[in-house]
Amino acid sequence: MRTSIATVCMSGSLEEKLHASAGAGFDGVEIFEQDLLVNPASPEEVRALADRLDLRLNLYQPFRDFEGVEERLLAENLRRAEAKFSLMNRLGIDTMLVCSNVATAGPDDDDLAADHLRRLGELAAGHGVRVAYEALAWGKNVSTYRHAQHIVELADHPAVGTCLDSFHILSRGDDPAGIEDIDPERIFFVQLADAPTLTMDALSWSRHHRLFPGQGGFDLAGFLAHLVRGGYGGPVSLEIFNDTFRQSDVLRTALDGMRSLLWLQDRTRDRLAGTPEPAGAGRQAMTLTALPRSGGPAGHAFTDIRTDDADGVGTVLAQLGFRFRGQHRRKPVQLWEQGGIRMVIDGQRARGVAPSISALGLAVADPAASADRASMLAAPRVPRQNTPDEEALVGVLAPDGTEIFFAPLDPTPAWADEFGPAPGDATSLLTAVDHVNLAQPWQAFDEAVLFFESTLGLSRQPTAEVPSPRGLVRSQVMRTEDGCVRLALNMVPHVLDAGAYPEHIAFATSDVVAVARRARAAGMAVLPVPANYYEDLAARFPLDPDEVAVLRELDLLYDREGDGEYLHFYTETVGTLFFEVVERRHGYDGHGAANAPVRLAAQFALDERRRTRPPHPVRG
Amino acid sequence: MRTSIATVCMSGSLEEKLHASAGAGFDGVEIFEQDLLVNPASPEEVRALADRLDLRLNLYQPFRDFEGVEERLLAENLRRAEAKFSLMNRLGIDTMLVCSNVATAGPDDDDLAADHLRRLGELAAGHGVRVAYEALAWGKNVSTYRHAQHIVELADHPAVGTCLDSFHILSRGDDPAGIEDIDPERIFFVQLADAPTLTMDALSWSRHHRLFPGQGGFDLAGFLAHLVRGGYGGPVSLEIFNDTFRQSDVLRTALDGMRSLLWLQDRTRDRLAGTPEPAGAGRQAMTLTALPRSGGPAGHAFTDIRTDDADGVGTVLAQLGFRFRGQHRRKPVQLWEQGGIRMVIDGQRARGVAPSISALGLAVADPAASADRASMLAAPRVPRQNTPDEEALVGVLAPDGTEIFFAPLDPTPAWADEFGPAPGDATSLLTAVDHVNLAQPWQAFDEAVLFFESTLGLSRQPTAEVPSPRGLVRSQVMRTEDGCVRLALNMVPHVLDAGAYPEHIAFATSDVVAVARRARAAGMAVLPVPANYYEDLAARFPLDPDEVAVLRELDLLYDREGDGEYLHFYTETVGTLFFEVVERRHGYDGHGAANAPVRLAAQFALDERRRTRPPHPVRG
Repeated sequence: MRTSIATVCMSGSLEEKLHASAGAGFDGVEIFEQDLLVNPASPEEVRALADRLDLRLNLYQPFRDFEGVEERLLAENLRRAEAKFSLMNRLGIDTMLVCSNVATAGPDDDDLAADHLRRLGELAAGHGVRVAYEALAWGKNVSTYRHAQHIVELADHPAVGTCLDSFHILSRGDDPAGIEDIDPERIFFVQLADAPTLTMDALSWSRHHRLFPGQGGFDLAGFLAHLVRGGYGGPVSLEIFNDTFRQSDVLRTALDGMRSLLWLQDRTRDRLAGTPEPAGAGRQAMTLTALPRSGGPAGHAFTDIRTDDADGVGTVLAQLGFRFRGQHRRKPVQLWEQGGIRMVIDGQRARGVAPSISALGLAVADPAASADRASMLAAPRVPRQNTPDEEALVGVLAPDGTEIFFAPLDPTPAWADEFGPAPGDATSLLTAVDHVNLAQPWQAFDEAVLFFESTLGLSRQPTAEVPSPRGLVRSQVMRTEDGCVRLALNMVPHVLDAGAYPEHIAFATSDVVAVARRARAAGMAVLPVPANYYEDLAARFPLDPDEVAVLRELDLLYDREGDGEYLHFYTETVGTLFFEVVERRHGYDGHGAANAPVRLAAQFALDERRRTRPPHPVRG
Repeated sequence: MRTSIATVCMSGSLEEKLHASAGAGFDGVEIFEQDLLVNPASPEEVRALADRLDLRLNLYQPFRDFEGVEERLLAENLRRAEAKFSLMNRLGIDTMLVCSNVATAGPDDDDLAADHLRRLGELAAGHGVRVAYEALAWGKNVSTYRHAQHIVELADHPAVGTCLDSFHILSRGDDPAGIEDIDPERIFFVQLADAPTLTMDALSWSRHHRLFPGQGGFDLAGFLAHLVRGGYGGPVSLEIFNDTFRQSDVLRTALDGMRSLLWLQDRTRDRLAGTPEPAGAGRQAMTLTALPRSGGPAGHAFTDIRTDDADGVGTVLAQLGFRFRGQHRRKPVQLWEQGGIRMVIDGQRARGVAPSISALGLAVADPAASADRASMLAAPRVPRQNTPDEEALVGVLAPDGTEIFFAPLDPTPAWADEFGPAPGDATSLLTAVDHVNLAQPWQAFDEAVLFFESTLGLSRQPTAEVPSPRGLVRSQVMRTEDGCVRLALNMVPHVLDAGAYPEHIAFATSDVVAVARRARAAGMAVLPVPANYYEDLAARFPLDPDEVAVLRELDLLYDREGDGEYLHFYTETVGTLFFEVVERRHGYDGHGAANAPVRLAAQFALDERRRTRPPHPVRG
């Protein structure tokens, strides 16, 4: 597939956008007119730079409000178009996007519009270029791709074709199957955009909320499958108007876009599997890139906490029943274990670092295949130094900087022996990592969702919005189908620093009351839960008063979904890290989202107290 | 009018919200349930704090999904309600908000819903409290206030009344006139919210985008007028779900809300002027607060630039034709003049301060009245030190920290003599301050719009969205009707620091070409405009090639609206400040918004070059 991206998707200058597009591996770009107008580089310089970067300039866009107008205005519009065709010749661009008229068109008249497009086509042909006509979802007379295509057919000129944009088609709920009926030679260009499912006027939705394929709610694999079956072989270009992308690092955005197209191709291959070859056998249909197959993760092999406060973290782990296995024989790294859970306290590059989740070790069937898949999806490899006799794990960086390592499915892995011999048996109340909660900077949220879905095959749950004293937190759970790996991505409000936002690791148990009692006996500081919460709980659920008394005594929170019950508690934060212990009863499958505001309020209050009071009581 | 605000409008803990509400002068608050649940304070403590702050706890909310359900669920709901009534007794709250059922109601059955509300009313009466039933715009069966009122009338119980919420009525386009037909004794509570005019599903619009009255697009003066004419005398409460307010300083938000209610009362008085007294003469109708009348500004008396780089700013002013009048006799402050424009370069409290617009001196008919009005609208006064023989100007702080001074309408003010005698006549090409462009932190944008509208009587123009290399900039022009004062408020993208964002002062001339030639001859650095811009200009407008050549030679930008023409140029930035010179021809009344992207791209590129290159060429 020939990949392309519109310059309007990215931040920065036109030069920066071209460099980033090439760096991310795109074959070409669409030049968004304004990016050229505001730039001092001449068209010849832009062309030369694109040549050097081996980047094709696919499209010049947009040309607005052209067709269906009065004759006097048509003359002006043709004069305007001619200037742009000359400019395209200088840029070496052969296709101009013409959007359906939203402002100056007269009454709906397909013959008139076709006549105007034909005259535009003649002018274009004189300059050796062509025009691709696109129906905007809010076009005055023409707002569907079938209508636009009908006018293109009436115009009947070799330099006049169609541009298909998934946003304008899918946002209206139109059926994209008709794409297969269009002569693929007449489809001059294709633009892809995803978008969240929103009920809002299409113009605002389109201008601010588009997303890369796979980040929103559109079925773009289905859309692309229609193009493939119809025989289209031209560029497939991302045209994403997104307020956040406009503010984000340009290369990251380009890589994010490329990842979305690679993953889309892979999913489209799945969709097409078993479909007969496209009809026009002589045509050059597009080839879709395949990703290496790799099963999803089967659990957490280890979790790495980076800090120079190993004592602080170790104390809490011990209170939760973890046992210290040993110090790494070569590095300032500790391993703590309980019931098959492995927690690593990592003191490397940790000077002044408050405890934070630095790496997730996920157990997979084929670590090499998982790493290859992630690398193909433009995930940067973690640089890793090993001495020859140590086991090498491969890992990639998630968008928020968390390292994701792929570990073999091995209950007694060799790398653990680098921390000394395994201890003998002991009672383990905690049995697994239930979920991990990662704070996400607001700029990286959609990128992170796509990353975890495409590289690990985690699927998105419906998002929740959690009120906190400092703003709403958007929370997105990503999980395997069987729930053995669950990541909760939390988008931090704009005013807060993502690095200072609490993150946590939740452990599963079948007896949260026992864990809580043992931890308290060991001196653990549990995050306090207000009495008001328990009164509301008693009003909401028909709970036994004795049961509520136990919950209240141990600062346990409670949730229920159908027959399923969820009991859990939180430790106080160590720096910005904390732990949770959860007990799922009767198949409860959620994450206690209703209790998150209680936790956030208590954490912010604790943070406030710590900032305004001395850490130890002043003695009189 | 008894003013009130819902705790959900603000950030922080419940205690912080109560303190801020009292500090801003509200009579009472609505307790949003979650703010209590997540808080460790007991209901008795909350009540005692409110008592000490002289703040009435008006309402407990929300109680959801109560009415129209199956009998078994009704029993559960009544049990749940009873727990809340007991809680309200402890809080000393006499009214609970019951929202129309969105989830659990059966088929639409007014008699059933009324029966359930009657039973709830009996239970409430037993606890000495009452319930206010509100139609949510997205209620399952009940979504209009008339429908809710009909059910309340069917319920026919003294403890069952109506709650009216402007959002739920006006967002649906309902006519609020029917409010006047409701027995005001049955209206137990009123919630006010404004909102921008958006086409989006009402639920998302309501949960994220509500605004304080006067910040959005609803006619709330008309809404309140109906309540007054109908005889309602209870609290009027702000219930604003807004993602930004949730992240903003709690006291600022409370003051912003109080300002909105004060201004709304004043406008509602205007609306009611000439209306006969409400019908029920015996009833205690509400009294609306009036603001001191003060005419709007008649022009710019002076503009104050704070910096310790007086030479840098003075050089540019001189290049633009300003003459140095003198140094202040007592303070490190300079006055520069041209054609009645007074620019003050202020070196007080300016160490290390890059040039920035610190104060606007606006000429008004009655400075004392203007200042009183602003103070009543909760605008903080500028602390100002004067020696006894110096003229004292009064000023207030705008939300972004800009000082707004009210100066008398005097072409030769006495304060200017503190800078030495007026110079003799000279040719002045610049004649006035055309407009001032102020960068706004994103948290303060809506607050700033309300501030300038309410205190100065400036009116809002339609907003524009301007692409920049670092994100979209939302731009809101506020102006007097005659255009003698125009402020452009620009909301800075989240990633950027508002203090580092370019601001400017634009001067008016009737001969921009002459100003540009003179400034260039004097060595001024003009912001460069790309050649691509002029090619597009020639394509878009039928301009004489000679005219385009002059524009291009002088880096002038051009815009046209009908017959009106706008020619303008920008200086390079001094720090983050720059100047613009504009010529308006044939009644052009805009601000060249189409050219703003060109300016922003050039400024960001300049900023980049300055950061990466030495300020002076390195000599070989």
